[in-house]
Amino acid sequence: MDVLEAIESRRSIRAFKRNDISEKDVRKLINAARQAPSAGNIQPWEFVIVKDPERKQQLSVAALNQTFISQAPVVIVVCANETRSKLGYGNRGVNLYCIQDTAAAIENLLLAAHALGLGACWVGAFREEIARDVLNTPVHVRPIAIIPIGYPSKKPTIRARRPLEDIIHQETF
Amino acid sequence: MDVLEAIESRRSIRAFKRNDISEKDVRKLINAARQAPSAGNIQPWEFVIVKDPERKQQLSVAALNQTFISQAPVVIVVCANETRSKLGYGNRGVNLYCIQDTAAAIENLLLAAHALGLGACWVGAFREEIARDVLNTPVHVRPIAIIPIGYPSKKPTIRARRPLEDIIHQETF
Repeated sequence: MDVLEAIESRRSIRAFKRNDISEKDVRKLINAARQAPSAGNIQPWEFVIVKDPERKQQLSVAALNQTFISQAPVVIVVCANETRSKLGYGNRGVNLYCIQDTAAAIENLLLAAHALGLGACWVGAFREEIARDVLNTPVHVRPIAIIPIGYPSKKPTIRARRPLEDIIHQETF
Repeated sequence: MDVLEAIESRRSIRAFKRNDISEKDVRKLINAARQAPSAGNIQPWEFVIVKDPERKQQLSVAALNQTFISQAPVVIVVCANETRSKLGYGNRGVNLYCIQDTAAAIENLLLAAHALGLGACWVGAFREEIARDVLNTPVHVRPIAIIPIGYPSKKPTIRARRPLEDIIHQETF
């Protein structure tokens, strides 16, 4: 799939078929994610692959009962390894770069999923302390996004974007 | 260009030919950026297009004298509109979602640039207060990345990535 077409046609998918995703495809997704740029090439990302039904259910609860999470065959929880960014860049590393770096990795992952015929949704609204308990993350590894992934069972709706004229500013704001 | 190939072959470009970039291509880049997902579809992104040599020079100074910034024909400064995220999601919106949303937009922009034969570099290390002065941004609009863009004049080096085995965790961390 062409990259500009993939960027334009990707949508958040919240309803999945029961079909499993192959191990090979999961690795392709993580491989795409890790190609993202990162500050100083520090790569502060960690990926927890969750397939256990009970654990998916717990993540769903952590995410304020967004039940579609537990219905996906695979849930990838993307975490920021704050120590990696802190060592290189102090507080700016922890509060900015490691959030940006993991977000760029997530966007790659979403585009790769779309190219493979999969659908995914970037869930950011969840209680981090519950996700930490569920995943047993050490204190320096922060769960930053929950990404349920599967084959889409519904055609997603198109959502409007702000007009270019609103978001483009010439020379100054 | 295929999306997986684009993700894999994109590199940070820090040396540019003098050739200008067409207005049409700049709009394609911003169009790709705004297709990124965002929390609640809030789209907290703003893009300042800088072509004025003196202003590019000032951005270069803000970015701790990374002089290659001023040598790019176009510099896009990506900003986070914190008010948009705060209205929807309070502090989590300002400290997390609007950073993630703009970062996803930036990754789209970098991939689109690569697909158009352009090169770009995501510069995160800069003094925000200087960039704010240069761009005249209101207090709620935070400059979050400086992206010099142009036609690459050098073949970029390949940078290693952490092995999949290091970054993939099964079920728990």
